[in-house]
Parts: sequence; structure tokens; C-alpha cells
Amino acid sequence: MARRIITLTTDFGLTDPYVGTMKGVIVSIAPDAEIVDLTHAIGAQNVPAGAYLFSTAYRYFPVGTIHVIVVDPGVGTERSGLVVTSPHGTFVCPDNGTLSYALAHAGAMLAMPPFAAGRLKLPRDWTGYVLANDKYRLRDISNTFHGRDVFAPAAAYLAIGVEPSSFGPLIETVEAFAVPFATKEGNTTVGQVIHMDHFGNLVTNIHEPDLPPSPHRIDVAGHVIDGLTPHFQASSSLVALMGSNGTLEIAVPNGDAAATLRATVGAEVRVTTR
Amino acid sequence: MARRIITLTTDFGLTDPYVGTMKGVIVSIAPDAEIVDLTHAIGAQNVPAGAYLFSTAYRYFPVGTIHVIVVDPGVGTERSGLVVTSPHGTFVCPDNGTLSYALAHAGAMLAMPPFAAGRLKLPRDWTGYVLANDKYRLRDISNTFHGRDVFAPAAAYLAIGVEPSSFGPLIETVEAFAVPFATKEGNTTVGQVIHMDHFGNLVTNIHEPDLPPSPHRIDVAGHVIDGLTPHFQASSSLVALMGSNGTLEIAVPNGDAAATLRATVGAEVRVTTR
Amino acid sequence: MARRIITLTTDFGLTDPYVGTMKGVIVSIAPDAEIVDLTHAIGAQNVPAGAYLFSTAYRYFPVGTIHVIVVDPGVGTERSGLVVTSPHGTFVCPDNGTLSYALAHAGAMLAMPPFAAGRLKLPRDWTGYVLANDKYRLRDISNTFHGRDVFAPAAAYLAIGVEPSSFGPLIETVEAFAVPFATKEGNTTVGQVIHMDHFGNLVTNIHEPDLPPSPHRIDVAGHVIDGLTPHFQASSSLVALMGSNGTLEIAVPNGDAAATLRATVGAEVRVTTR
Repeated sequence: MARRIITLTTDFGLTDPYVGTMKGVIVSIAPDAEIVDLTHAIGAQNVPAGAYLFSTAYRYFPVGTIHVIVVDPGVGTERSGLVVTSPHGTFVCPDNGTLSYALAHAGAMLAMPPFAAGRLKLPRDWTGYVLANDKYRLRDISNTFHGRDVFAPAAAYLAIGVEPSSFGPLIETVEAFAVPFATKEGNTTVGQVIHMDHFGNLVTNIHEPDLPPSPHRIDVAGHVIDGLTPHFQASSSLVALMGSNGTLEIAVPNGDAAATLRATVGAEVRVTTR
Repeated sequence: MARRIITLTTDFGLTDPYVGTMKGVIVSIAPDAEIVDLTHAIGAQNVPAGAYLFSTAYRYFPVGTIHVIVVDPGVGTERSGLVVTSPHGTFVCPDNGTLSYALAHAGAMLAMPPFAAGRLKLPRDWTGYVLANDKYRLRDISNTFHGRDVFAPAAAYLAIGVEPSSFGPLIETVEAFAVPFATKEGNTTVGQVIHMDHFGNLVTNIHEPDLPPSPHRIDVAGHVIDGLTPHFQASSSLVALMGSNGTLEIAVPNGDAAATLRATVGAEVRVTTR
Repeated sequence: MARRIITLTTDFGLTDPYVGTMKGVIVSIAPDAEIVDLTHAIGAQNVPAGAYLFSTAYRYFPVGTIHVIVVDPGVGTERSGLVVTSPHGTFVCPDNGTLSYALAHAGAMLAMPPFAAGRLKLPRDWTGYVLANDKYRLRDISNTFHGRDVFAPAAAYLAIGVEPSSFGPLIETVEAFAVPFATKEGNTTVGQVIHMDHFGNLVTNIHEPDLPPSPHRIDVAGHVIDGLTPHFQASSSLVALMGSNGTLEIAVPNGDAAATLRATVGAEVRVTTR
């Protein structure tokens, strides 16, 4: 059997050995697993941010990859843990909305206002189980660190071939929030900033097919940008371009758009034909 | 032989390639070693913090794991390097107190005021050697980066099967500081904050058996907390609960207790029966 | 064939899953590659910092290692990508000066003022190719993330045995900037701070052979230091010592020289015989 890959996405940061401890648990159970960090800098308890950022990365991994995502404000409460298989990978996470963007990619969607939450039926080619079987968790379970005690062991047992169905009862719905999509107002596309990255680039939820006909005018945080540019070097001031996640981004080449615009996640972005 | 795991704990940070360079040295000697980062964010030269944080993680790794800990204000001076074997793993570090918490777990202890230092006899099932053999270090030894020149090579040679006794003379005592323990004043347990984590949780040295009978009253930094809660969601304000290291923690669910209380490491925490 | 090592140096930070995504691309193509992070904290678009920091680390890796360095302000423009083989490793990076320090180590050098740029002929035992072959990149190429779409796949294909010459046309010159060297003014060596590390140590470009005869007097940022010390413990104030990269460093033992001196990269450092 090929070496299984396990990715980790958490809000644990890197200043404590929390992530390292999860890796200790994993290699104790699955010595040949290959562990890859996606990011551990999700804002504390920011489930939507974790759900979004992990969703930008998982499709670049082999289909057999096990993705562990732990942003878990409800740790120790009655919320369940999940193992969910999909055509693009297997997910191990709390049942708290973490899979919302991945489900949106798969065509599932909540008919609710953005970020309102509810239970969503898994797509036909996905399968979910509750992490209930004591055999596949640590013996002593803390109330504050299920990343170590529940999720890391689950991923490791999956990596050594334990079937998802062995972890607990089948579940047909999972917690999800309504992923915010860009909308149309006449000839104008109305979206929003959904992430500010390390460079200060403002990543929006406006996909290429959402755009009205060019030439474009982009309005964001009181600024107007005339037209999309092909890359960061096209201008020395504020630019709009299609980013690496396939959505519109607002950037200042060699600068920091978030700081320049004082914009934050949720800021409205309007694109219209000039 | 199974792939050996080497963990790394340092105060080197991740902004320089110091840690990456140590890994280059390791894989040059032991191509099959699996390297796991515990944390590289120990405060600069903060030996007690390194000693504590590494001690919370190593027992979650296989017993054959080699743990390298380099928080080394005395680099380049006469202080020795060590390889120490124990029933819970092998440690490679400067002889400067780094093993104090691990030794305390093993039942060894200094009868001195907290953090005062002295030499401590190794437990019967531990064995220590000085890193003295030039054969198992880099050819050119700097005076400022023994992580690269001495400790990484030592771990790598251990990983490929070099015996601990080959590294240098047997040593029966190591530098240690007196790990601070909670004490009793009548019906009150008096402990202290020994770590503030990424979430702002205040981790104390009060273990479950140290607690007086419930119902509890917890006093910390001028605040009173009534009773222990089972998990972070139990309240929206300041809570006290048993944390993942088995000791009492003070937390603000979805908040930052360290910021809220303006408390720091060393702050007194008192638990009494209400 | 032994497991190939791929190192990564970028300015992507660790708060987004950019680096994790590159790793997903790599393990999808080269499941047995071993990936090692050098650092991802290069200042945004700071090509000289990336060129310098990577150059301090690569010689500690096996010669067969593939080093990927992506600090790429020109991403999406006409600048090329490169694969360059050398006696000390194989480099994958944009053609933008990233190899300047590595080339200086190899004896190649631009006869221009410090940091002025031009094209530099590769040394006789180095070979360069342009990354042009669509077969060895992702199918969809963004204009903003060639780390994922071009450089990660190139490294992965190299790791599974694709010949460097298969990637595109031979190239005999690469972009380089003039690496700043220390100079002599009579009996005085004049160098500069080229890096401030995690500890606040000021790393200079003054090598041991550059030094005038001792006893030394070091002038930096309005401070005078009398003589070199062997290690950090030699004094409790400002010291000068030979650092782990083989060049003079200014440090405050258990302190932060950069903060103490308010010095930055580029600050002049003069060493003379007292």
C-alpha cells in the first residue's frame, strides 16, 4: 500500500507543541503516514475561515489523502466528530460547519442567508460516519484537545486501513453554513471579501463566470479600479485580477491592499460594465 | 529497522533557516529519519519554557523517538551536550536544565526553591552520556549554533543505530532546576501559572489530585471563579477547567484569559473549598 | 533510488495554505519525495533576503537535494523559471537574482555596485535550463501562484528522475545582483549588516579573512565594541563574534542587538586594529 498522506489544518498556532503532539499520536499509530501542514494559523475558533482555507488546498492532493481540520469551539460538548469520504479526499473534523465550502464545491448548498447554519444532506457520492468507536481514540479523552485525543487517532487509523464505517454510525446530514456567493443586481456583480492573505491581497467570492461583460469597473471600500489586469506587475497601485483560487482579488503590487484600503473580511465588492 | 522519529524543540523561530539547516544535517546522515517539529517558538533562551513545553508532548511519541531540545544560552561555553535515554524516549540537549520537567515526571526532584538549580542524579532506568566524540559532530564547530553542529548530528547518528555510549563518557547527574509544584496551605491549594498558550489559556501546575474537595473557589489575579466547568462552552466568561496536560487551566471561552486577566507566568492561583 | 529531498524557501508565510498546497502538488507527482521547509518568512518580494537566507542553508543538504526558492515579484510576467544544477545541489526558482549568493559562493560575481543587477554567466560546472515544457507544470497556470503551478511540479518531476534538460532550452546566463562584499580602507575593513535574525543578531558580510590584525575595534551604529569574543556568554552587553555563517555578527547575549542599536540591514560596520 502506498504511503497515505494526512494533512492538518487547525487554529492551534505553532507556539505550543499542540500540532507536534497530534503528529506524535499519528506516527505512533501509523508510522508510515506522511503528514503535511496546510496551516495552523486559522483565527481562534474561526470555523468559516478554516472551512474556506482548507477548501482552497485539498484538491491539489492525491484523492487518497486524509484531511484533518480542527477548528473546534465546541470541543468537549455534545457536538460529534466526523469522518466523511468524498471523491476528492477523506475529511476528519468536528461536525460544526467545517465542510461547508467543500460541500459548496460539490454543488450542495444551503438556501439560507450567508453564514446562517443548518443541517445539509451529504451529496450522493459522499459518505459520513460519526467518530464514536472508543477503539479508535486515545484511552484518556480530555475535554479540551480532541485534535490529539480523537481526530489525530481517527486519521491515523484510516491511514492504516481501518474502514470509515468502523468508526461509528452512518450520518446523512452534517452541520453547514450558507457559503456566501456573489449575486447579480442588473448588470452589476455584488460579492464580498472572504479572505485577506499573507500579502494583504483581498480575496473575493467573485468567480470568472460571475463577471459582467468587460470593460469592468470595480468598486471596493470607496475606491474605484478600472479594469482587470493580468498580473501583479501591471500597475504600481491598486489592481484587480483573477487570483490563484479562481476568484477576483484586489491587490497592491509589492504592497498591502488590506492595509491600503482598510478593508476587512465581509467588505462589499461591486463589478460592473464601465 | 523501523524509521526512527526525531522531534525538534528550539527557540530558533521560523524566520531564519536555522531549523531547516538542522534538518539538512539530519537527512544527510540519516536519510530515513522522520523529523517532527514540536515548537520553535520557545522564548529566546527560556530554558524553563522549553523544558516544560517539550515535556507535555514527548509521551505521545513512540518510545524509540529521539527528542532534540535546543534552548541554549550557554552555546559555545563549557556546558556539555547530553544524550539521555529513558523509558519514554531518548533526549539530546544541552546540560542546562532542559530535562527538569521530564525528570520530575519520572519522580526525580530537586529539594530547592522553585527554579533554583543544581545537579540531579538520573533515575535508575535513565542513562546519560556526554556528547564528546568528534566523530559524531560536524567537522567545523561554530560557537553559536550547536543545534546544527552538535545536536542534529548526534540525533541523526542515534537514528542510524549508533549506541548512546559511543558519544562520550557516562554521566550520572545532570543540571536541573526545581520544578515548581503546587503546595497546600490548610484547605487551600496554592499553585501558579506556568504557561500561557496560543489561545491565551493560563496553564497551571495544579493537578487533579492536588485539588481540595469541591465545591471549589478559584482565585487568580484578583478574580474569583466559582467552581470548575467541564469544557470551554460551559460559560461565556472566565472559567476554570482541567486542561489537556492534566492540570488546571484558566480560560475565557472564545476569548483570551491572559489578556483579560493581564496575568503572566508565575501568577499565583489558589483553589479552596467554597 | 534513494528518497529525493526537496527544500522550500518562500515569502508565502504560514498563515495561508500556500505552502501546504505546493506540498500537495509535489506529493501528487513524487509520493516518495521528502520535503523540508527552510523558511517561508522571507519579506514579501524581498529577493535579496531570499537569495541570502537560502544560501546559508543549502550546503548542509545532500548534493542530490532539489532547492525550490520562490520570492517572485514578477510572477505572471515574461520572467522565466529556471532549473539550475550545481555541484552543491539543484535549484528551481524564478530567473530574478535568487541565485546571486549561491553564485558568489561559487566564485562568480558581478562587477557592479552592490545590488545592481545584470546577467551573469553560469560557472563551468553549473547548467541551467528554462522551465518551458508544459508537460511538467500544472494544466491550468494562474498568473499569481507559480510556486504551485510551475515550481512545485518542476521540483517533483526532477525528484522522480526527469532530466533537467527535458524542461526547456539551455540557458547560459541568469539574472543576478552584485552581492555586497566587505572592502578595505587602509587598515580598516568596511562591511555591512546583511541580515537581522530571530534573536536580533546583526549578521554582517565580513568574513574571518577580511579582518585586519587584532586587537580589533568594531564600530557599528554609533557604538564601539572592543575586540571579538568567542561566544555569546563572554559579556552581558554588546559583543562581536564570528557567527555560524562564518561572518562577523553583532549580538547582545540574552538580548536583542537590532533593537538595542536600532540598526537595520545595510548599516555600515567597520573593523580596525586598535
